[in-house]
Amino acid sequence: MAAMQGHSTVAIIGVGLIGGSIGLALRKRNLADRIIGVGRGKASLAKALDLEAVTSTTTSLEDGVKDADFVVVCTPVNEIADLLMQVAAAAVDRAILTDAGSTKASIVAKVDSALSKGKHFVGSHPLAGGEKNGVDFARADLFESRVVVVTPSKKTDPADLVAVTYFWQCLGANVISMPPDVHDRALATTSHLPHIIASAAAQITAAADLELTAGGWRDLTRIASGSPDLWLQILLDNRAGILNSLTGFEKTMAEFRAALESADAAKLRQLLTEGKNRRDAVGN
Amino acid sequence: MAAMQGHSTVAIIGVGLIGGSIGLALRKRNLADRIIGVGRGKASLAKALDLEAVTSTTTSLEDGVKDADFVVVCTPVNEIADLLMQVAAAAVDRAILTDAGSTKASIVAKVDSALSKGKHFVGSHPLAGGEKNGVDFARADLFESRVVVVTPSKKTDPADLVAVTYFWQCLGANVISMPPDVHDRALATTSHLPHIIASAAAQITAAADLELTAGGWRDLTRIASGSPDLWLQILLDNRAGILNSLTGFEKTMAEFRAALESADAAKLRQLLTEGKNRRDAVGN
Repeated sequence: MAAMQGHSTVAIIGVGLIGGSIGLALRKRNLADRIIGVGRGKASLAKALDLEAVTSTTTSLEDGVKDADFVVVCTPVNEIADLLMQVAAAAVDRAILTDAGSTKASIVAKVDSALSKGKHFVGSHPLAGGEKNGVDFARADLFESRVVVVTPSKKTDPADLVAVTYFWQCLGANVISMPPDVHDRALATTSHLPHIIASAAAQITAAADLELTAGGWRDLTRIASGSPDLWLQILLDNRAGILNSLTGFEKTMAEFRAALESADAAKLRQLLTEGKNRRDAVGN
Repeated sequence: MAAMQGHSTVAIIGVGLIGGSIGLALRKRNLADRIIGVGRGKASLAKALDLEAVTSTTTSLEDGVKDADFVVVCTPVNEIADLLMQVAAAAVDRAILTDAGSTKASIVAKVDSALSKGKHFVGSHPLAGGEKNGVDFARADLFESRVVVVTPSKKTDPADLVAVTYFWQCLGANVISMPPDVHDRALATTSHLPHIIASAAAQITAAADLELTAGGWRDLTRIASGSPDLWLQILLDNRAGILNSLTGFEKTMAEFRAALESADAAKLRQLLTEGKNRRDAVGN
């Protein structure tokens, strides 16, 4: 892929934590001649330039993408599909397009139904980042040994899947491919519902009891510090998947409740052991 | 307090993560002449001696405590009250007794009702440790800048409260004092229910989806790796408090469910913001 041969132009729409980290990783690995940061906020574009996450910036999407070989949209999920359509209209036909949204089914469906023939889009979701947002937290190694999911659809050209997969691999990521709806169902349990759980666990803790929290509570609730605006969009976008996962969570919590109410030590031990075994399978 | 003047004998009943860390901290700060590790398992006693967490060991509780000025019981919570009674019978009258159990109301009530006049006991709970157990993970700095709750009752002699408070302060801890039942209600929300939540979140994640977990899931579920045997006893001991906290958690989760079902963006934003604000009040 041109973008990965050191003589190409990559445009990044939305230069926050993810977009900024892509830019830093491209520079560190010397993978692009030009890295164009596109955004609405002049201050954060200036910051991205200052951090050398991009080589130039513009608030004009058309100007930013017209020479790009590769474009990645890293905005909040509710803006991604529309921006991808604008990118497709402004970029050269051969340009490869992807995004970094935490949900995939609605974005891919919208783009698939509207994109002209001869354009090249494959959705992506890097499982990286955290509760800190903004280009200030961008890191060149953010994707190293992290999973990036790419989500081809029936409309995807296999060559485009190869190109997008290769892009993330060049940034150090382990790439996994699956259909968008499979991604969304899995991420409901591994990422989206956890955000709700952490938020609920944090907010039921009385302010007066916060001095009695320790490492366990801090770990459990850490992700609740994420941006409500960003997470609101993710929750709304994948609410069917999340509600399905929530039903499973409620069922297990009800088992814990019943076991506590009846002081059923054997059942409590079984539940605790199942949780430990699943958690231990992942490692620290 | 004698134990804190560098010429005294401290007995530690149960030399695991907490007991071992007390020993290491006493040694590092040169706070005791003799640190006697008492336990049933010869292998872990030998390990404690090897790590220099104790200066001698014994499997005989009577031998271990008979010369002690200060005794701290660091076993699973279901064994603590009985062991404290045995310690009180075997130790000299002036010895100060405490424990390190994660629950306090039942232990303090049991000891208060059975302890002879002239004995000196105050319950403690160091908010330190984590999902790793055993003396192998003991650290001399485990209590530094960590909270230790001490739980005097109506029967507590103020001089004993001062002595136990001073003991933990000498290990670097910030000591907070409150009645046992207040402790248990608060810890239900800040520690015990979180363990159940983490366990449930871990076990509803399909094994096949574990490769799609990232830092958020790992943080949320980390404490689920704790020992089922230890946590089972904590959950059973404080089940009234935990059930009360669980009701609050279920209520907030039901609010999230209703907001998701109706795609109520304003309500979701409000809930996410409440969670973030409470979490941000604690820091990383």
